[in-house]
Amino acid sequence: MMATNGKEACGVKDDVSPVSSNGSAVNGKATEAPPLSKLQNGGAVRPERFTFSPEPTIEDIRRMQAEFTDERDWNQFHQPRNLLLAMVGEVGEVAELFQWRGEVAEGLPDWTESEREHLAHELSDVMIYLVELAEKCHVDLPQAVLRKMALNRLKYPASKVHGSAKKYTEYKD
Amino acid sequence: MMATNGKEACGVKDDVSPVSSNGSAVNGKATEAPPLSKLQNGGAVRPERFTFSPEPTIEDIRRMQAEFTDERDWNQFHQPRNLLLAMVGEVGEVAELFQWRGEVAEGLPDWTESEREHLAHELSDVMIYLVELAEKCHVDLPQAVLRKMALNRLKYPASKVHGSAKKYTEYKD
Repeated sequence: MMATNGKEACGVKDDVSPVSSNGSAVNGKATEAPPLSKLQNGGAVRPERFTFSPEPTIEDIRRMQAEFTDERDWNQFHQPRNLLLAMVGEVGEVAELFQWRGEVAEGLPDWTESEREHLAHELSDVMIYLVELAEKCHVDLPQAVLRKMALNRLKYPASKVHGSAKKYTEYKD
Repeated sequence: MMATNGKEACGVKDDVSPVSSNGSAVNGKATEAPPLSKLQNGGAVRPERFTFSPEPTIEDIRRMQAEFTDERDWNQFHQPRNLLLAMVGEVGEVAELFQWRGEVAEGLPDWTESEREHLAHELSDVMIYLVELAEKCHVDLPQAVLRKMALNRLKYPASKVHGSAKKYTEYKD
């Protein structure tokens, strides 16, 4: 399904948008093809980045999961702390896929298709519970991410932290 | 910032789209107002659901985080296993906010504004690392979620599991 680039640290987007037999339509219209990656930083030469499909949006996922939960009368089980524990469980399932492997290169060049799809499922489970947890906590997750990213830019000015992994509390003014 | 509905299990959307001083524009255009919730299940009477803003999309978040990482020359630290551990750390920070509290009702009626914003930050950190982890693993996260939700509908048919929290392996045919 996906060509890999050996051990290269930066993958090139090629066949990266597998569409299942059931799942290419969102809201009754066909999902658009993913946009081509663009060169970043004002045109500096850089390998093309792996990109995501534009849909479904976070709100699409929230709505679909709300419908799934409603249809099964499962809101009685989906209190915030239960959802948090469910998310923790799914993070554990992602961790299981990486344990005992040593370092893993970008693009997972040594993984089988079946292992990649297993990982896609477990990352999706984390996403689904994260979205439902945010909904039940009345946190507007997409906008919250924008605010947090703005904070991160303030905490870690590019000119100050370039190439360093220190925490922001360790930098001197 | 956000009115709450006492202990009601289903919140009503009111002022749920706080916009930071920096962050309401995505891709140079203003973020649209969130759509009104719609009644679900063919018009059955149900309290309005809390909804998210339509933007940023998951791909918007991936692109913004990639730019943030590139500008700081941090890709050297962002291997898949490092990102997974970073995500685990952020999930732990979410868990800290819920520990010792006992049950927490939908909408977090007893939480202060500061506690809500702290939660919004920590959920956002989980989201940011989840998105970057998926990118570096070349998993098209939005499409992967669609496939997983289709699988979940097959594993848990509404007619069979209504009102039950059993795992799918516990149901008899």
